[in-house]
Amino acid sequence: MNIVQQVESVKKAQVFLGALSTEAKNNALKNISYKLKEKAPEIIEANKRDMELSRKEDLNEALLKRLKFDELKITEVREGIESLAGLEDPVGKTLSARELDKGLELFQVSCPIGVIGMIFESRPDALVQIATLCLKSGNGVILKGGHEAANTNRILADIIHCASVEAGLPEGWIALAESREDVAAMLELEDSIDLLIPRGSNSFVKYIMKNTSIPVMGHADGICHLFVDADADIPMAVDITDDAKTQYVAVCNAVETLLVDSRIAESFLPELKKRMDEKNVELRGCERTGRIIEVEAASEEDWSTEYLDYILSVKVVDSEDEAIDHINTYGSGHTDGIITSDREKASRFMDLVDSADVLWNCSTRFADGFRYGLGAEVGISTNKIHARGPVGLEGLVIYKWRLIGNGHRVADYSGDNPRKYTHKQLEKRYNEEF
Amino acid sequence: MNIVQQVESVKKAQVFLGALSTEAKNNALKNISYKLKEKAPEIIEANKRDMELSRKEDLNEALLKRLKFDELKITEVREGIESLAGLEDPVGKTLSARELDKGLELFQVSCPIGVIGMIFESRPDALVQIATLCLKSGNGVILKGGHEAANTNRILADIIHCASVEAGLPEGWIALAESREDVAAMLELEDSIDLLIPRGSNSFVKYIMKNTSIPVMGHADGICHLFVDADADIPMAVDITDDAKTQYVAVCNAVETLLVDSRIAESFLPELKKRMDEKNVELRGCERTGRIIEVEAASEEDWSTEYLDYILSVKVVDSEDEAIDHINTYGSGHTDGIITSDREKASRFMDLVDSADVLWNCSTRFADGFRYGLGAEVGISTNKIHARGPVGLEGLVIYKWRLIGNGHRVADYSGDNPRKYTHKQLEKRYNEEF
Repeated sequence: MNIVQQVESVKKAQVFLGALSTEAKNNALKNISYKLKEKAPEIIEANKRDMELSRKEDLNEALLKRLKFDELKITEVREGIESLAGLEDPVGKTLSARELDKGLELFQVSCPIGVIGMIFESRPDALVQIATLCLKSGNGVILKGGHEAANTNRILADIIHCASVEAGLPEGWIALAESREDVAAMLELEDSIDLLIPRGSNSFVKYIMKNTSIPVMGHADGICHLFVDADADIPMAVDITDDAKTQYVAVCNAVETLLVDSRIAESFLPELKKRMDEKNVELRGCERTGRIIEVEAASEEDWSTEYLDYILSVKVVDSEDEAIDHINTYGSGHTDGIITSDREKASRFMDLVDSADVLWNCSTRFADGFRYGLGAEVGISTNKIHARGPVGLEGLVIYKWRLIGNGHRVADYSGDNPRKYTHKQLEKRYNEEF
Repeated sequence: MNIVQQVESVKKAQVFLGALSTEAKNNALKNISYKLKEKAPEIIEANKRDMELSRKEDLNEALLKRLKFDELKITEVREGIESLAGLEDPVGKTLSARELDKGLELFQVSCPIGVIGMIFESRPDALVQIATLCLKSGNGVILKGGHEAANTNRILADIIHCASVEAGLPEGWIALAESREDVAAMLELEDSIDLLIPRGSNSFVKYIMKNTSIPVMGHADGICHLFVDADADIPMAVDITDDAKTQYVAVCNAVETLLVDSRIAESFLPELKKRMDEKNVELRGCERTGRIIEVEAASEEDWSTEYLDYILSVKVVDSEDEAIDHINTYGSGHTDGIITSDREKASRFMDLVDSADVLWNCSTRFADGFRYGLGAEVGISTNKIHARGPVGLEGLVIYKWRLIGNGHRVADYSGDNPRKYTHKQLEKRYNEEF
């Protein structure tokens, strides 16, 4: 089957997957977990082949580490699947119920989005995580992983498919795309793919966003800010900046630019400098910063750069409004925080900064599905519609309107002597009807 | 100001609009309603100029009727604004609240999407409706109406802007685009416009969807179906089909294709034919339909045609599954219904048909924001994400994650002897914090 046929087949299967009971889906998840354990030696063998090929291609150590899929990783993904089986089903929830007239009842009920195209880089555990999240939320999925992980991805997708079909899921609900040509073809399939979720580098995500009319959920840049207000507690500001910058530099929710109120700059910046020197963080500062501490001079480009490295740009501002304006201009709408002891300024900051996550007196690194307690994370979205920030299972569903009547016609509600709508909120749920 | 500068100015103003209190927004709405009354003579005068120019350009009667904006229309839009002021504010709702750890609290709070680009055809009342919906939901808006209504649109936008600024809204939150070049430029402004809502012809909406990377909410086709199941009540099936086809043919939720179970076709189709002849509806049938009643022969193209006219295509199918498959293949995911006395088949139909609105024993014409009791309607969406079917105020908001800590750092939750997240649901709302 070519990719177009594969996607068609996922679409057909998803119709039935979307209507399955919670029990049926959870049984499939449990069988997948069981089969991953049973087939562990084969998975590890396939992964070794990928590792060898990648070593020959001189893949760097960080990427090799992400590619590795051993006994420990299998245990981890199985734990993830077991916990997913325990989560509430996001499908079939009654979001609202309303009587339009006697015997004419409207239910807004959550349902899967449909067919998800997931494009990610080399980590094979991402394949298992996304496939099982799609299963739980009733979505069909086409997965395209990195070519480095081709053998591992193939056996994992195969196990997931076989184990779930054995447990009663419709054949073909999951498919694997393998080439760049497949990805290019997927971008054109707006009638069959309902949502694309790309995970990877900034330029890769931007490329996807620019080259398809399918909705895309994800984030390109993660240019996160902290604003140290005039009323900040200085030791707290140093500690939070340290955590937000150095706890893990290579991630999207690490801080990249620090904005400092001019009224606190002279007392705060030397303390910051001391800590950043200890942690080997290079500071790039605006002119006013440079007058207080020794820093590299920041250029205009620094304000819109995601370093993902031990580098922090620093700018002195004269007011909270200037800080907010800087963030709304140069930020990426990801995660931005204020450090202050003034409730009103904190509230104003969180109101006016237009980002998915706005924080007060804590580290930007908390902006994450696991830390937020969402259970499992599809990714982080800087979109302004549908789902924003860390996206859990809820981000993979939408709703249908289900209207139940008994011969009701619109004509009776117009013209002379029309019937009136009652528009009364109902307390019952849709599934109590069937 | 050119369109790019206008959009920038809307974006800057929206930051403050989005944070305004419900009271401030409702006061602005009331002042707009008051000024529309006060300036009625000028509005009607401007509209007369548009009407004269359009008559000279030989605009057809239907379009002239839509263009007309008289005393009655002003009263109607004012009633709409008063009722909008009475609706609950969709902004600032706490959607979830969770303690991550002692003193570290996460609130998911609804907020405006940001900047909406609204592109619609000649009806000036749409301008007032959309502008005020955006105001209530805290969104900035750029409006592009039909050129036929240029004078009317200009005075209406001006009144809305002045009246709302007089009541304390930030200057520039609403702007008017006037040329096709403006629209073309808007499609490129993905960094400033967060959502496009096009309302108009199928080809126009498709053009917008194909030519921008800004998310688009709306619908192109409205190919709606009714399936007359073997267990349908025949008089009910005839009545509902009649209503769904003829109550108003030119709208997206009118039925275009009727699917009939072969087991009921011989008794149902002659009754249908009788009624459709009375209502001057042309029937186009498949071969099996043609063996039972006299019809034009339907071609393959008929199954994917939105007639918006007194024409109905009819197809005989052998099972509910064949009907569902036909709808999911040829439909537009808008509104589709089943007529049956069998609960199980009704439930199965509503589960498996992938449309925004799925109905049982009632007319497709009910799929509408007013009839659904949503208060005010932004439009109808056949999107699979964010909002689906009739979209009310709720479709113009998204959410922010607001995290409040007291010096919390991620480093304390990892490494040796890490702190544990509590992930405890909180019963309080965000606004109780401030």
